[in-house]
Amino acid sequence: MSEIPIAALVLARGGSKGIPLKNIVEIQPNQTLLARALHTIRQSGVFNAMWVSTDHEQIASEAARHGATVFARSATHAQDHSSSLAATQEFLHAHPEINHFALIQCTSPLLRADYLMQAAHQVRAFTDNAMGMMPSCAFSVVRSYKLRWRIADTLNGRLQAINFDPMARPRRQDWDGELVEAGMFYFSQRQLVMDMGIFQSEWCTVVEVDEQDALEIDSVRDLTLARVLIDME
Amino acid sequence: MSEIPIAALVLARGGSKGIPLKNIVEIQPNQTLLARALHTIRQSGVFNAMWVSTDHEQIASEAARHGATVFARSATHAQDHSSSLAATQEFLHAHPEINHFALIQCTSPLLRADYLMQAAHQVRAFTDNAMGMMPSCAFSVVRSYKLRWRIADTLNGRLQAINFDPMARPRRQDWDGELVEAGMFYFSQRQLVMDMGIFQSEWCTVVEVDEQDALEIDSVRDLTLARVLIDME
Repeated sequence: MSEIPIAALVLARGGSKGIPLKNIVEIQPNQTLLARALHTIRQSGVFNAMWVSTDHEQIASEAARHGATVFARSATHAQDHSSSLAATQEFLHAHPEINHFALIQCTSPLLRADYLMQAAHQVRAFTDNAMGMMPSCAFSVVRSYKLRWRIADTLNGRLQAINFDPMARPRRQDWDGELVEAGMFYFSQRQLVMDMGIFQSEWCTVVEVDEQDALEIDSVRDLTLARVLIDME
Repeated sequence: MSEIPIAALVLARGGSKGIPLKNIVEIQPNQTLLARALHTIRQSGVFNAMWVSTDHEQIASEAARHGATVFARSATHAQDHSSSLAATQEFLHAHPEINHFALIQCTSPLLRADYLMQAAHQVRAFTDNAMGMMPSCAFSVVRSYKLRWRIADTLNGRLQAINFDPMARPRRQDWDGELVEAGMFYFSQRQLVMDMGIFQSEWCTVVEVDEQDALEIDSVRDLTLARVLIDME
């Protein structure tokens, strides 16, 4: 298989609202969220470069201390409403040498190196097979067996089952469930992001991650849970 | 509003596999899962009766100690493959006086009394409006903003987005999300369960519960999380 180079990219702006400087909050004694992500990225052994895009000095120095190269994110792309897409486009624009990359969320602290290895393997295998004709992509999903409803008629409150027959509710063992985006990482390619404005096409492959690893840090409560879960490992 | 009587029903068989006698595991010092559920049920003040259906002596005595009336569940309906539906039918068959009831899962320890109050209110209001012409039902849902995919072509690994347009990924603030069953409780009616074999029709109302309350106890890990979450309250 070709060893196409893949760059790891972590977006870590300073102005997070829920938890101030969330990316460099300690998730374990002497380990910040960012340090943990960078450790897992290095541990996977599948990246030829490790970047952190940030607008904040403290985050930049934490990134550098843990072996990442710092990209100076512009203030324009570090607002509350700034999208990961725009920030990634800014980064790729400045780095024309990067074709394949993986956006990795340091707010998913239960990310495991083997998930990244699997995604990199899939992306490289696809690139070989497609002979570079199609952009490759891979992202994390959780298999879910949840039953979903929509309110079909707001006035009378009528419901409609979306993904099953209410008269014959499926049991877990009777169906394959659905794939729900876990948001841990997005392996993608320059062309998708720059030309099409997306990280994922319908020609992506997926990496199924354990539901128990899918925790994302949004609140102080999530942080507490993550600490307990990491301690239990 | 009519005060139609609603019976609370907890199904608690002895032979749970993942955690032995799960229903009477301690979730807090001196409080079992079952005791906690019965406490919340009583606290809600909306039920005229409180039943626990079980095949196990220890569960029965824990139920009685916390004020529930015990229904002797037959061994036939207490197998690994036994459905809640069959166990509820068995119970309703023996209790023809019960028309409205709520199946309440004691494996959802973050259940709150106000959720039960809201569901009871909705069921009673509906029964008033429909003048008994239609069975009423209400159940718990969580609003989810997760993006979902299916594998459209297993051979080539092609994906298909289920609930969004990949070229214009919705942001959380741009859509209402979806209603995912939380499984905490099912307010239902004899006719639905006995004649149609379902707890929910499409004419149910829903009670939206906080995503953070939706934890269900399946594993020892879930138990640990629940203990931490209850301590944080």
